[in-house]
Amino acid sequence: MKRPTILVLGAGYGGLSTVVKLQKTIGADDVDIVLINKNDYHYESTWLHEAAAGTMSPESVRYDIKSVIDNNKVKFVKAEVTEINIQEKVVTSSAGAHTYDYLVISLGFEGETFGITGLDKYAFSIANVKAARQIREHIEYQFATWSLEEEKDDSRLTIIVGGAGFTGIEFLGELGNRVPELCKEFDVPAEKVRVICVEAAPMVLPGFDPELVEYAVKQLKAKGIEFSIGTPVVEATPEGVNIKKGEDEFEFIKAGTVVWAAGVRGNRLIEQTGIENMRARVKVDKDLRAPGHSDVFIVGDCALMINEAVNRPYPPTAQIAMQQGDVCANNIIALIKGNPTTEFVPDLKGSIASLGDDDAIGTAFGKKFTGKKASFMKKMVDNRALYMIGGAGLAIKKGKFNLLK
Amino acid sequence: MKRPTILVLGAGYGGLSTVVKLQKTIGADDVDIVLINKNDYHYESTWLHEAAAGTMSPESVRYDIKSVIDNNKVKFVKAEVTEINIQEKVVTSSAGAHTYDYLVISLGFEGETFGITGLDKYAFSIANVKAARQIREHIEYQFATWSLEEEKDDSRLTIIVGGAGFTGIEFLGELGNRVPELCKEFDVPAEKVRVICVEAAPMVLPGFDPELVEYAVKQLKAKGIEFSIGTPVVEATPEGVNIKKGEDEFEFIKAGTVVWAAGVRGNRLIEQTGIENMRARVKVDKDLRAPGHSDVFIVGDCALMINEAVNRPYPPTAQIAMQQGDVCANNIIALIKGNPTTEFVPDLKGSIASLGDDDAIGTAFGKKFTGKKASFMKKMVDNRALYMIGGAGLAIKKGKFNLLK
Repeated sequence: MKRPTILVLGAGYGGLSTVVKLQKTIGADDVDIVLINKNDYHYESTWLHEAAAGTMSPESVRYDIKSVIDNNKVKFVKAEVTEINIQEKVVTSSAGAHTYDYLVISLGFEGETFGITGLDKYAFSIANVKAARQIREHIEYQFATWSLEEEKDDSRLTIIVGGAGFTGIEFLGELGNRVPELCKEFDVPAEKVRVICVEAAPMVLPGFDPELVEYAVKQLKAKGIEFSIGTPVVEATPEGVNIKKGEDEFEFIKAGTVVWAAGVRGNRLIEQTGIENMRARVKVDKDLRAPGHSDVFIVGDCALMINEAVNRPYPPTAQIAMQQGDVCANNIIALIKGNPTTEFVPDLKGSIASLGDDDAIGTAFGKKFTGKKASFMKKMVDNRALYMIGGAGLAIKKGKFNLLK
Repeated sequence: MKRPTILVLGAGYGGLSTVVKLQKTIGADDVDIVLINKNDYHYESTWLHEAAAGTMSPESVRYDIKSVIDNNKVKFVKAEVTEINIQEKVVTSSAGAHTYDYLVISLGFEGETFGITGLDKYAFSIANVKAARQIREHIEYQFATWSLEEEKDDSRLTIIVGGAGFTGIEFLGELGNRVPELCKEFDVPAEKVRVICVEAAPMVLPGFDPELVEYAVKQLKAKGIEFSIGTPVVEATPEGVNIKKGEDEFEFIKAGTVVWAAGVRGNRLIEQTGIENMRARVKVDKDLRAPGHSDVFIVGDCALMINEAVNRPYPPTAQIAMQQGDVCANNIIALIKGNPTTEFVPDLKGSIASLGDDDAIGTAFGKKFTGKKASFMKKMVDNRALYMIGGAGLAIKKGKFNLLK
């Protein structure tokens, strides 16, 4: 009997956790494990806002996939997936066709612009390492150009961040620390720079404890960040964004940089599979399989699970993606062995949003934390993700251990 | 009797050398020395190509003017000179009007584009720290964007350097070292990058020993740099440059970055003074005064002196500018004391062109040097300039002492 092939698409938190769990649990002779990823590196998507702001090097947020997989057990293919055909059970990539017995779709998120005119074209999105790198370079180029030009266009120094959710707030925290550095480096007076957060919803960080949100806004404002809340972006142009401030009231904000951090969706390839989805996210069964497809698992940002306690989806976090990877691997092994699968139950350890390198807010163990203590915990969470996937070696090599400064 | 005012315009090699020599030689009660400069820092204009390539930080190529002037003897005014009126003996700057008894014009060079269409608008010029910084950021942004974009525009990775003179060749040397770093940093395959030197004249580095020139070209070619010699740039556009390859033969080279390093001229303010000049350079008297103006000295890149041995102007170098500053200061003191002025005679110690951090060509003590030895000597020359102006402290703080790597 031919041994089964497990095909994993994407080496983000979900995919890589699945592969690591599989290679730990199963023998090389029992299955063929194939991992396909666009790049030969994994990146910490929860750290991308730091690379985008320029407070961390793009190199520091990624590591070689080969360094965490067991090359005797896992075949790694560097290729871009172009089609997923679950009827024929074949995946097409830039490296050719791949058949499978069990498929794990862990292709992560894409930015969602909700059809707002011009955002696709004129706003940056912190979508991956390359996009983050471009944002950093773009901002630096704007500062360098302002400094040089005879007739100064101050709007070059305006950065608009669309969205006051998790990513938006964390990115603002980094910018709050980065802007003074940029001013020094490029001889720009601090008062010329504007960083503005524009949010459609009437609140910052929905779902977070109001007291923590208040702390976050106060801290960010102290760093010079402006907030325009309850004012949707209605259009982006090459010169900036138009925001809606009232029934018939609009304001155009000129800005050299617009970063859209207000929405994510699943990978668009999902929409071509025929599996029922909402913005490319699939409401998976309790054992993480796509409804009606017993050999297709979906984990990470492409999976949608309802938190019945609050009747809202769980947020697309690294924490949940990694836990799903674990359960997904176990369930595939169960299926191969003819055992029943188990339900995925998230183990929510809390949530911490950083506000720059030295500050954060969060809840853990049922308690609220702010400031240096929360920042310390955030870094522990970041290091833990490295440890879970790559062990102590990776955590030491790529971890955030500058904790005492 | 009112003590005389010496007004020095510009804190480049020439101006700063003049001021440093004056403050060393003359008492605080004897004269008023006023130094006007656009920035509160001096920059090593001979190092700008390194900042532009990104092989040296812009911060490393500059230092505070205050750190080398004696604040008891010299009044420093951070302002931009806007007019020089030698008839009324008044200089206007963004800080107001300044009268003088002796004027030293040491305003340095500007880029010269010889009226070639589009160069002013679409080519960068390594004119000062801010311009160098913008070039570095522009190149990095091009690499970051290429790496991210779906449909790759390879011309983003083409860098055209106009001019195979001193600046062009030194800049190419830095790019030769920088490009592999950029490729690594931005995940760009090296073979996608083109660096092309375009020169109108039929030769590289005119005036240099042919054997050394041959060495330089060989070394730069080994780093992947292409040469198009004897092919004038006839037009620059937002997409690249058009070069003339024969009588009726033209070639358009698409390029994301065009850096024009083919010509310098004196500061345009000279042209408004009524002093006879060629491209804002004044053929000064032997004691460095402007012809017919006994109280106006001109030193550095705005001064033109003929090397009678070869019947060509001396090149605009830091070495000559600093020597002129010395003589200029002495001559002003001589005039104040009623003594005769002395002739300026350049003491040419040789000429070394770097080819990146680790290689160079040059002549000194009547001998030719290449490779690491020449590179070592180049760094000694660089350190010497710091020492001459700011003493051992400055040389140690800002010098190039990584000589043994």
